[in-house]
Amino acid sequence: MRRRSRLILALDETDPDKALQIAEAVGDVVDGVKINYPLALSAGMGIVEEMSKKASVICDFKVADIPNTNRLIVEQVRAKGAEGVICHGFVGHDSVKACADAMGDGEVFVVTEMSHPGGMEFTQPNAEALARVAVEAGATGVIAPATRPERIKVIRKIVGDLKILSPGVGAQGGKASDALAAGADYVIVGRAIYQAEEPRKAAEALVEEIENG
Amino acid sequence: MRRRSRLILALDETDPDKALQIAEAVGDVVDGVKINYPLALSAGMGIVEEMSKKASVICDFKVADIPNTNRLIVEQVRAKGAEGVICHGFVGHDSVKACADAMGDGEVFVVTEMSHPGGMEFTQPNAEALARVAVEAGATGVIAPATRPERIKVIRKIVGDLKILSPGVGAQGGKASDALAAGADYVIVGRAIYQAEEPRKAAEALVEEIENG
Repeated sequence: MRRRSRLILALDETDPDKALQIAEAVGDVVDGVKINYPLALSAGMGIVEEMSKKASVICDFKVADIPNTNRLIVEQVRAKGAEGVICHGFVGHDSVKACADAMGDGEVFVVTEMSHPGGMEFTQPNAEALARVAVEAGATGVIAPATRPERIKVIRKIVGDLKILSPGVGAQGGKASDALAAGADYVIVGRAIYQAEEPRKAAEALVEEIENG
Repeated sequence: MRRRSRLILALDETDPDKALQIAEAVGDVVDGVKINYPLALSAGMGIVEEMSKKASVICDFKVADIPNTNRLIVEQVRAKGAEGVICHGFVGHDSVKACADAMGDGEVFVVTEMSHPGGMEFTQPNAEALARVAVEAGATGVIAPATRPERIKVIRKIVGDLKILSPGVGAQGGKASDALAAGADYVIVGRAIYQAEEPRKAAEALVEEIENG
């Protein structure tokens, strides 16, 4: 995934045709399109293959199993052409390393803290340790919430030059400029793009906003 | 899932035809057949539907996302006829509750500690808190490793009459009788059944062993 627009679309759309249409419309505007299990399960993994022709796809599967199962999941993700996968660090170094190994020259991002209320219970208190897992297990980067830019700064100190992807911009209240200023490499935006009447225009406007700080 | 044989097959087989054959062969011997993402992704979710005609299926998807995404995943699991789903508790009460709500009268099991080396890093130190999440968020039961029966006793005290499912019997070194004596309701066995020349006979032998303590 090349860093140009610094914008990633969270395509939380479960209708395969609609999802592919939107990916087609914004694929060259955004740096990546993040999809998750509800779409992949309803459409089948063929959707990853199709979408990878239109955009750089990140499978946000929150992979969280033992090393061998992680490997088998990520091998399928990679075989279908996805450039990135998101996994949990909570299952330990070996499980993350299995993802990194299976992804080859693709990218693996480790969840640090999550911004929903339940994320405060276990992920937030362990966020710094989870960021260290990402570094030590050979991941490409981490996920850290744009809703708490002060936390991005802390995570940046731990992960060095690893990539930081920040969800929570737009509908969830985070500001793209704040997240980027705090050290994020990419902001992840969902509804503000895919629920817009013209997703491409919405994405372009966001890119312009990012470029102008 | 009725408790008769107290035996669950971990069907870690990625070939759909072979998986269905084995489920057919042992479906009425075991209380449940646990499958995971590598199979569901390669075969498509139709495999859950087909297998549910042959056995009581538990989707070991280690569901670990925000509440809304968990709900969307588990709704698909349930719609395909699975009777159970396995989720992570470290994403918090709300995420587990979303699974329980979406599963309706089906069963939700929460991972406590995991027995692979990486499981010692975050899941083991938090196992008791994760068991409490299961109780408080309305889950049906928990997963706790048969390789450490002394830990099953501790978890049992926390979860009361919730079900405890114990993997790690057989190839991984745990003894069924030890896990059950420590308080597990079911043991989960994989390779000793699905890699046996005659899976049905292997399952029957295990059931007999369980019945005779």
